[in-house]
Amino acid sequence: MAIPVLRPFGIISYNKIRDFLHPISSPRLNSINNPKKLVYCAPSSVSNLVGSEAGVSLNVGTHLIPHPDKVEKGGEDAFLVSSHGGGVIAVADGVSGWAQENVNPALFSRELMANASSLVEDEEVNYDPRSLIRKAHAATTSIGSATAVVAMLERNGILKIANVGDCGVRVIRKGQIVFSTSPQEHYFDCPYQLSSEAVGQTFLDATVTTVELVEEDTVVMGSDGLFDNVFDREIVSAVSSCDNVSDAAKALANLAHNHSKDSSFDSPYSQEARAKGFDVPWWKKIMGMKLTGGKLDDITVIVGQVKSSLSS
Amino acid sequence: MAIPVLRPFGIISYNKIRDFLHPISSPRLNSINNPKKLVYCAPSSVSNLVGSEAGVSLNVGTHLIPHPDKVEKGGEDAFLVSSHGGGVIAVADGVSGWAQENVNPALFSRELMANASSLVEDEEVNYDPRSLIRKAHAATTSIGSATAVVAMLERNGILKIANVGDCGVRVIRKGQIVFSTSPQEHYFDCPYQLSSEAVGQTFLDATVTTVELVEEDTVVMGSDGLFDNVFDREIVSAVSSCDNVSDAAKALANLAHNHSKDSSFDSPYSQEARAKGFDVPWWKKIMGMKLTGGKLDDITVIVGQVKSSLSS
Repeated sequence: MAIPVLRPFGIISYNKIRDFLHPISSPRLNSINNPKKLVYCAPSSVSNLVGSEAGVSLNVGTHLIPHPDKVEKGGEDAFLVSSHGGGVIAVADGVSGWAQENVNPALFSRELMANASSLVEDEEVNYDPRSLIRKAHAATTSIGSATAVVAMLERNGILKIANVGDCGVRVIRKGQIVFSTSPQEHYFDCPYQLSSEAVGQTFLDATVTTVELVEEDTVVMGSDGLFDNVFDREIVSAVSSCDNVSDAAKALANLAHNHSKDSSFDSPYSQEARAKGFDVPWWKKIMGMKLTGGKLDDITVIVGQVKSSLSS
Repeated sequence: MAIPVLRPFGIISYNKIRDFLHPISSPRLNSINNPKKLVYCAPSSVSNLVGSEAGVSLNVGTHLIPHPDKVEKGGEDAFLVSSHGGGVIAVADGVSGWAQENVNPALFSRELMANASSLVEDEEVNYDPRSLIRKAHAATTSIGSATAVVAMLERNGILKIANVGDCGVRVIRKGQIVFSTSPQEHYFDCPYQLSSEAVGQTFLDATVTTVELVEEDTVVMGSDGLFDNVFDREIVSAVSSCDNVSDAAKALANLAHNHSKDSSFDSPYSQEARAKGFDVPWWKKIMGMKLTGGKLDDITVIVGQVKSSLSS
């Protein structure tokens, strides 16, 4: 039966968060060695209440864990949390392949999120996440590319999402997922991505969706480091076992991190790899072995809980 | 890489389709014998162009296959296709458990869809699928219950969906799924359902989402008889191999029907069952066996392709 998820958490403080940055990289499944991306990783959880007018708003917690090889530089993920409207959250995941071109893959995702943060209240953006991607992308001058997802909550409960690539969003209501974004990719492990180059995608390639939220809904946003390593049912379970959004974000990031290092874990990533035709060599298959393992990556998690709020 | 799906199909004729009705029922996985529902089943594929004003509209094909035990009565699924706006499509799946109460489970779903068809242009509905569910449910006097999904396409390409239970919608763009609904259930195989009884769900329990469609997008709507038996990747593959929406609907329904009868197929339904703790007895597990099989059910498939249309 439906079980309420994640009790409301006392407001810690309003705090507009800008971007953090950390690199991640190579898929680590035994037979797949195809370095992809760096991500942005937060040093610790952050919780804040976004939104300050009547209606609903998000109480937000965040947690980032960088790819183990990129801890010093902080990974290549970036994110933003803003109080505009009912709240704005976004994640960008820098594509690690740029390291092979002697380009720091973190720069693009960081600048993209920094620009998005500056533009979030822009009149032309007009509370449209695809417009925010368009303007932030246009303002970004770094070389590189990144996947990106932006979600903007209106005071009436409508969460509008624009998504390019394989970051993602889940909405949990009464103990079950009622909304998921779908990743876009050119082929396995090559997601759609905003880029400094003409060959990349643009805001026109974003999938634009909305979902009507109600009080106590929980929104989970993450880079693929979360969704490649944690099943949806585990996300629901982890969130329901936490008392607040900060703990939930931390629990999810830690779960993803632990799975990413577990070569025997049959992760969403390894299952997807096998479905796409990747597997262990035939002689291992004969011995009953199969491709398993999590995916080492930067892991960004943003957890938002919908709460009603009065005028400030 | 992204591969265009489903070439535009010549308009056969505009034809407002009302409901068809057929019963389906019991889950057939070895260790799960928990009859659930009857569905509505069409005798053959239907293709029509819905919508008649400038903007985008849906070219629609449908196909229903009743549960093998309910062919004579036509199953317990019902559906509607309407030309209002850019097109309206809906599926309702009568809950089979009502047969144990000597109630024909097809009556509720059929009346619900018939009422929805009558109300689709209602001013109060105002092109809002949740309002259509509200009014159609209120007008339904039959005893019983049903899951239901309603999708209304606006001329500007916005597809608005209201969903109660485990019917579903997928949107395919350039060879990949870019949008999916999420099923709602109380527990395994017990979906949220609109009901004649107070214990059931209402329009207030509908998950309301939108997705912005573009020309050539393909919308696949179905009862759980489709999604329990066919993986998303198979849906994409089947649709991409068909030349028109009628063939695509028929191919998907036949694929689901074949899988539903295959006790060795590791279906979405059997995988979900195992994830929820259902499996073969321990002594079979020791022998390396596991719970597999499709799910016998009524199967309803509606395939719509987005096309631009001029003023009529």
